Amino acid sequence: MVEVIEGVSARVPIALGDRSYEVLIGEGLMTSEAAWRGLPSATSAVVVTNTVVAPLYAERLCAHLRQRYPRVECVVLPDGESHKDWASLNLIFDHLLAEHCDRKTVLVALGGGVIGDMTGFAAACYMRGVPFIQVPTTLLSQVDSSVGGKTAINHPLGKNMIGAFYQPLRVFCDIATLRTLPAREVSAGLAEVIKYGPIADAAFLDWIEAHIEDLVALKAEAVIHAVRRSCEIKAAVVSADEREGGLRAILNFGHTFGHAIEAGLGFGTWLHGEAVGAGLVMAADLSARLGLVPGDVVTRLRGLVGRAGLPVAGPALSADEYLHHMRVDKKAEAGDIRFVLIDGIGKAVVRPAPEALVRETLAACTA
Amino acid sequence: MVEVIEGVSARVPIALGDRSYEVLIGEGLMTSEAAWRGLPSATSAVVVTNTVVAPLYAERLCAHLRQRYPRVECVVLPDGESHKDWASLNLIFDHLLAEHCDRKTVLVALGGGVIGDMTGFAAACYMRGVPFIQVPTTLLSQVDSSVGGKTAINHPLGKNMIGAFYQPLRVFCDIATLRTLPAREVSAGLAEVIKYGPIADAAFLDWIEAHIEDLVALKAEAVIHAVRRSCEIKAAVVSADEREGGLRAILNFGHTFGHAIEAGLGFGTWLHGEAVGAGLVMAADLSARLGLVPGDVVTRLRGLVGRAGLPVAGPALSADEYLHHMRVDKKAEAGDIRFVLIDGIGKAVVRPAPEALVRETLAACTA
Repeated sequence: MVEVIEGVSARVPIALGDRSYEVLIGEGLMTSEAAWRGLPSATSAVVVTNTVVAPLYAERLCAHLRQRYPRVECVVLPDGESHKDWASLNLIFDHLLAEHCDRKTVLVALGGGVIGDMTGFAAACYMRGVPFIQVPTTLLSQVDSSVGGKTAINHPLGKNMIGAFYQPLRVFCDIATLRTLPAREVSAGLAEVIKYGPIADAAFLDWIEAHIEDLVALKAEAVIHAVRRSCEIKAAVVSADEREGGLRAILNFGHTFGHAIEAGLGFGTWLHGEAVGAGLVMAADLSARLGLVPGDVVTRLRGLVGRAGLPVAGPALSADEYLHHMRVDKKAEAGDIRFVLIDGIGKAVVRPAPEALVRETLAACTA
Repeated sequence: MVEVIEGVSARVPIALGDRSYEVLIGEGLMTSEAAWRGLPSATSAVVVTNTVVAPLYAERLCAHLRQRYPRVECVVLPDGESHKDWASLNLIFDHLLAEHCDRKTVLVALGGGVIGDMTGFAAACYMRGVPFIQVPTTLLSQVDSSVGGKTAINHPLGKNMIGAFYQPLRVFCDIATLRTLPAREVSAGLAEVIKYGPIADAAFLDWIEAHIEDLVALKAEAVIHAVRRSCEIKAAVVSADEREGGLRAILNFGHTFGHAIEAGLGFGTWLHGEAVGAGLVMAADLSARLGLVPGDVVTRLRGLVGRAGLPVAGPALSADEYLHHMRVDKKAEAGDIRFVLIDGIGKAVVRPAPEALVRETLAACTA
């Protein structure tokens, strides 16, 4: 029997032994007194955010934290994936050291996936590890990147190449923050929500199809259910494979094609979620060509991705360019391209595919 | 019953659950076929070393590794604590990424504490963690820094501020490598050996006193015993407190004074072990002033430290300067200076001390 916390609509436990924690989902959680109870004490809380999110939420969160921690600081980083690098990470370290923050400091990530990844990695490394809390403010980070403990920065030679598996103390998915998101970013987040259906839960895919307009419109009840079910599915996968030994790869359904789109166009041209949206259709198409699912599954996913406001086909890059970028994707070990595919709706498999079939998919699913 | 491995004189297990590993000690272990057996397979081994150690041992180690791994690379970093920074760490990442090293790469640290700390931290972060092996080539790293999983780089505002707890797969203490060490570095390593007596093992302190000349002369039998017993004591402490929750602090006996010496003179003026040597005497002196040990313990330690070729008193900095540097030491939480002291020989305690007594120690134990 799970205790009810005022203002918290859903709680998802992430079972990872002594690194276990909860994802709390609800409206206005960022400043809910009840939701923040029970966290360990700290000498300082340092909020890490960016220039876009800070004006919207930093003051409100810091005021709330001042009731809980003796000292509250705020570090504002430049916005965007292009700043997910050592220079920005070092801005966090500079601040922590200049302010003499000790090992009893807690970092609080306030923002989307880039802020969460960088804050988590800073927490993993600062004095060999201080605790951190996630307050994801985008749909994509609420349903995906803030859960599971993958933290990282980019290197000029590759995305997310320098990082750590490091779990937060708690994740606060305050769905009120989603209302300040541009529509394009809501759609991008929905790509990751849609992903969970084909790989793990056919009934959830049915539910998403029935509620996609409510999700696009950010209706609270629908969003809370979508975030909850997404986190539950991710939690089950992460609990079974914290360090990406194998199973966790299924969360990358659509991502091998998606990464090729991002890399081929130049990162930032399409949002990650947009590339994943088209990537889902392409991965379903390849699954169908391998005989793993009937062709109508591709039609169905294409329709849903389109209704979510996402591109349903990849951009017009050459097949060779796609293949090149898929080969250097870091999930590729020793040159092989392994794809996450679906073997019926609700079951993912990871396997290589013949290049001829991949080329057929690229011909069928790009503009 | 521990299996005997050819060429291995001693084996020290480090019990850390699924992160457990062994320290192997012996002559010529670096290229012992038997000692390297049983490590997990890898697509590449990347040796990380520096400009001083590379000409002595890199070729020999790489040739040995080529018999075990399909591909062997070597990264040579600039030498010295002043290069224990992000720029050098990034040289490792640049190399790994330029060579398309995947998650099945193993890093091999060949060198002293700086190389071990940096290689371990690079391994902790590269693609969120690849395995690594320690081949410490200094006495200090064999008896201290290569055991226990503390890895880090320095930040302009503090030493070892950015790092991780990350355990190696195995540690190879090849005592043959110590013969290329300058005498000053042998003495520096002996400071850490001596440390283990007062904090944990009165009989080991007796043994060190009886064999200090053999140790200074690097006689194999004595060195093997000293490395083994040092690693055993460190292993017991680390197993009980991997992440420095409390007990592990006793390993810093002499280090609070020592760090103040290093910081006050400018890092690199005295070797770390030299500062610890004088720091041991000062910490014993403070313990005596607090009534925890009789005064003759100070005389005894001072004599031993001197016979090891180490300074027995701190440099002539002002007491205020010592106190300033001790206060900013990162082991000081929220402003308190806590000292590791001895409560009789063989038992360490961690506690604050009245400033007046600390000033008496500084007056008595500095030049």
